[in-house]
Amino acid sequence: MDRINITYNERPELKDPIFIEGLPGVGNVGKIAADHLKDELKAKKFATVHSRHFPPQVLVGDDGVIRLVNNEMYYHRGSNSDKGKGKNDIIFLVGDYQGLSPEGQYELADAMLDLAVHMKVRRIFTLGGYGLGRMVEKPRVLGATTNHQLKKEMMGHGVVFAEGEPGAGIVGASGLLLGLGEMRGIEGVCLMGETSGYFVDPNSAREVLRVLVKAIGVEVDYGALEAKAEQVEKLTSRFKDLEKGIQDGRKQEDLNYIG
Amino acid sequence: MDRINITYNERPELKDPIFIEGLPGVGNVGKIAADHLKDELKAKKFATVHSRHFPPQVLVGDDGVIRLVNNEMYYHRGSNSDKGKGKNDIIFLVGDYQGLSPEGQYELADAMLDLAVHMKVRRIFTLGGYGLGRMVEKPRVLGATTNHQLKKEMMGHGVVFAEGEPGAGIVGASGLLLGLGEMRGIEGVCLMGETSGYFVDPNSAREVLRVLVKAIGVEVDYGALEAKAEQVEKLTSRFKDLEKGIQDGRKQEDLNYIG
Amino acid sequence: MDRINITYNERPELKDPIFIEGLPGVGNVGKIAADHLKDELKAKKFATVHSRHFPPQVLVGDDGVIRLVNNEMYYHRGSNSDKGKGKNDIIFLVGDYQGLSPEGQYELADAMLDLAVHMKVRRIFTLGGYGLGRMVEKPRVLGATTNHQLKKEMMGHGVVFAEGEPGAGIVGASGLLLGLGEMRGIEGVCLMGETSGYFVDPNSAREVLRVLVKAIGVEVDYGALEAKAEQVEKLTSRFKDLEKGIQDGRKQEDLNYIG
Amino acid sequence: MDRINITYNERPELKDPIFIEGLPGVGNVGKIAADHLKDELKAKKFATVHSRHFPPQVLVGDDGVIRLVNNEMYYHRGSNSDKGKGKNDIIFLVGDYQGLSPEGQYELADAMLDLAVHMKVRRIFTLGGYGLGRMVEKPRVLGATTNHQLKKEMMGHGVVFAEGEPGAGIVGASGLLLGLGEMRGIEGVCLMGETSGYFVDPNSAREVLRVLVKAIGVEVDYGALEAKAEQVEKLTSRFKDLEKGIQDGRKQEDLNYIG
Repeated sequence: MDRINITYNERPELKDPIFIEGLPGVGNVGKIAADHLKDELKAKKFATVHSRHFPPQVLVGDDGVIRLVNNEMYYHRGSNSDKGKGKNDIIFLVGDYQGLSPEGQYELADAMLDLAVHMKVRRIFTLGGYGLGRMVEKPRVLGATTNHQLKKEMMGHGVVFAEGEPGAGIVGASGLLLGLGEMRGIEGVCLMGETSGYFVDPNSAREVLRVLVKAIGVEVDYGALEAKAEQVEKLTSRFKDLEKGIQDGRKQEDLNYIG
Repeated sequence: MDRINITYNERPELKDPIFIEGLPGVGNVGKIAADHLKDELKAKKFATVHSRHFPPQVLVGDDGVIRLVNNEMYYHRGSNSDKGKGKNDIIFLVGDYQGLSPEGQYELADAMLDLAVHMKVRRIFTLGGYGLGRMVEKPRVLGATTNHQLKKEMMGHGVVFAEGEPGAGIVGASGLLLGLGEMRGIEGVCLMGETSGYFVDPNSAREVLRVLVKAIGVEVDYGALEAKAEQVEKLTSRFKDLEKGIQDGRKQEDLNYIG
Repeated sequence: MDRINITYNERPELKDPIFIEGLPGVGNVGKIAADHLKDELKAKKFATVHSRHFPPQVLVGDDGVIRLVNNEMYYHRGSNSDKGKGKNDIIFLVGDYQGLSPEGQYELADAMLDLAVHMKVRRIFTLGGYGLGRMVEKPRVLGATTNHQLKKEMMGHGVVFAEGEPGAGIVGASGLLLGLGEMRGIEGVCLMGETSGYFVDPNSAREVLRVLVKAIGVEVDYGALEAKAEQVEKLTSRFKDLEKGIQDGRKQEDLNYIG
Repeated sequence: MDRINITYNERPELKDPIFIEGLPGVGNVGKIAADHLKDELKAKKFATVHSRHFPPQVLVGDDGVIRLVNNEMYYHRGSNSDKGKGKNDIIFLVGDYQGLSPEGQYELADAMLDLAVHMKVRRIFTLGGYGLGRMVEKPRVLGATTNHQLKKEMMGHGVVFAEGEPGAGIVGASGLLLGLGEMRGIEGVCLMGETSGYFVDPNSAREVLRVLVKAIGVEVDYGALEAKAEQVEKLTSRFKDLEKGIQDGRKQEDLNYIG
């Protein structure tokens, strides 16, 4: 195996495809959103990415059968095959891990962009979470783009561009695909759902998807996503109560200072 | 020295060999099991592996003579040379260390598989421990395979396939040799003995061997292994008492909650 | 992208340029000083450096538009274009990050020196902070050079050469550009402003600049820098009070020992 | 600069040279011993080693002049040039650092051995410290060799070969030069002076030298080394008192258990 191996099980010819990345990250928001959209659109796998930059690990399925950790690429045909719901063909990049080292991240992003350029991708959407370090009731979807025109367009879909957010920039594949993509003539936007950063967050992923589907002109059902959100809700509600208790305690203290 | 150096002191011609890996890992279960089987079968060394992916270290023998840390490969002839006890020829991969970095792990596994393909290996057994974080009285042997047929066969030898175990997948050589091996047409199974993860565990290694010898049709004596197990037992019994004390204390507390 | 990519938007012909490096480091002293001088002299950008040795990250501007983290190179024309204020042309190396790994640091410094040799640089100034671990009222500017003649010259501009300082040597770009530069026939000096190391320190950066402008024969206005210094002053004054309190407490204790 | 750069200021022709390595390590025992012997024998520098595997750092001399961190090689002519005191020519490897990464350690050791093979080195002495984690009054000199004959010879010079010591093997250049050297037909021994591991230890270095000079047939004065040892003694005596106090306390406690 080379440092990056892309194995194709199909070589689809696509028309002006958009590229959607959703890999593991803060709250797994991007991964959950991209996986859900890919599943809902019944996208087809056409390539598997293995790499020495991923952990040296196999995953074990519930059937006891292993597979090497990887990234996978799917495609979805737009207007023609999808009853007119979508305009553009779509390529998905989803997977188990991002590259472990900085160099690995750059090399993987470059390899994905080689493929994107070859397939004539014009626009990239990268999906992620924006960790706030506190529970979020109504997550906003923050944006960052490669140009002002695209920013204006995204604001029309409800994406929030807030000065100074995210202050630390965007780390990993969601950032590099935009930054390196721009150097190769591909515009792009990163959609970041606000999230606590403590748990996987299907709720934030749904908010990201709500914006994304408007931007790319498809429709999806959120049922499966909401079921996941409820599961997580149950697991985390106890944590929320605890946090609320702490905050209430603080307020009490604050009053003590004054009174 | 290149990044990986394989030095051959013999180039055995083997017939349909199976490949058994047992390198250091959780509880050293895989290493202990493979070393014991190799010793019992009086397997012969045919290759030494040095690598820049191992620690920069020499070991000092009891005689004061050093040797560079390495991995070693042994072979055992089956039906013909072993009084009919075994069917297949066997190749062993044992050693002092696994690769230190993720990239090193991939590169070493690839090099081992180059050799396995060249020697026409058809099946790989990787041996390891499954850390539970608590003392284990009767360790089960969990399995993960590259296909369903092999899974069925292994269940017949008493291997347990439990949904969701191991949840974190299999990290290191025991995982990669299966995952990368499958991509090169070699089927494989990982046998994992349950172990606390706190100590080296010859007891768990014996349980792994009991399954393995049935699967490959050889017989071994466990005397040396049981002697080791007793030694460890003595060293760890004090720890067990302590743990039991803690648990008893907890139960006491639990009762307090109720009563 | 290769491991280091230098993109030129201009290829200026310069006469005997001096090279000034100011990248992030202790107290960001070097970065603040070099950025300020570059801005005051209205230096022009001629090259952008991207590298796999930088973090895999994009920064998001206040306008919501991203750019890949980088280093940038600027030039300033001396006597002819700058109303006679300066004698030499100047090249600036500024940026978001230094290389993350030791190997990356060496590779980046080598690449910068390739360019410096090509552009006939004769002298390098590297700017940095010297962390003292305590608040500093009047920061001195310490120096280290590639030869004694340059040391003498720098002492004439008020640079302090104190035996045993900095004891740990100079780590990173500010050190390597001198050490590797000397091997390629370029002399150089590192100017280090004393700083606590706890905060970004525009105050220390101004002291470094005061020395530097004398050495290179230009004049600058410190207004913008002093505004920054005041901002930081406000943020850190509380910390200083606290430290003073601790020290006063200590003195009290010391007296107790005696009395 | 390549990953390893060796610059020669002289290309001495040597006769059957022995190779002595003393780089920084536990208690800096090996470095202190090799530096002292090199200075006493007035060995001449013939090569400088720079490497991307060293830290990206320059050191600043007391005169304020910098130099890039490095390793240096010296030679000493034996019988002919040294008034008959020594039999063999000697090559010294000394320096500021060892390689930072495992790969770097291997690559540097290989480069040194390329040079050793080219210069027809037949025997390597590597010098180091053996950390005991407690203060040592009379440090023994432990040994490890590449063959039994050399072990016997070393025992005749007072080197101690103790079963199970050092238990963890020998990590770094002192180990690799032996392990990799043996693979290239060069025999070698590692001499390890017992040391606490808490401080630099000229006292242990002197014991290592006492053995080494017998083995290579030279004579040295220990004056400079003893002066250093006294300095360290003063600095550490307070620590020893403290440790003694703790031990006395423990003994007291032990008595309490009994009484």
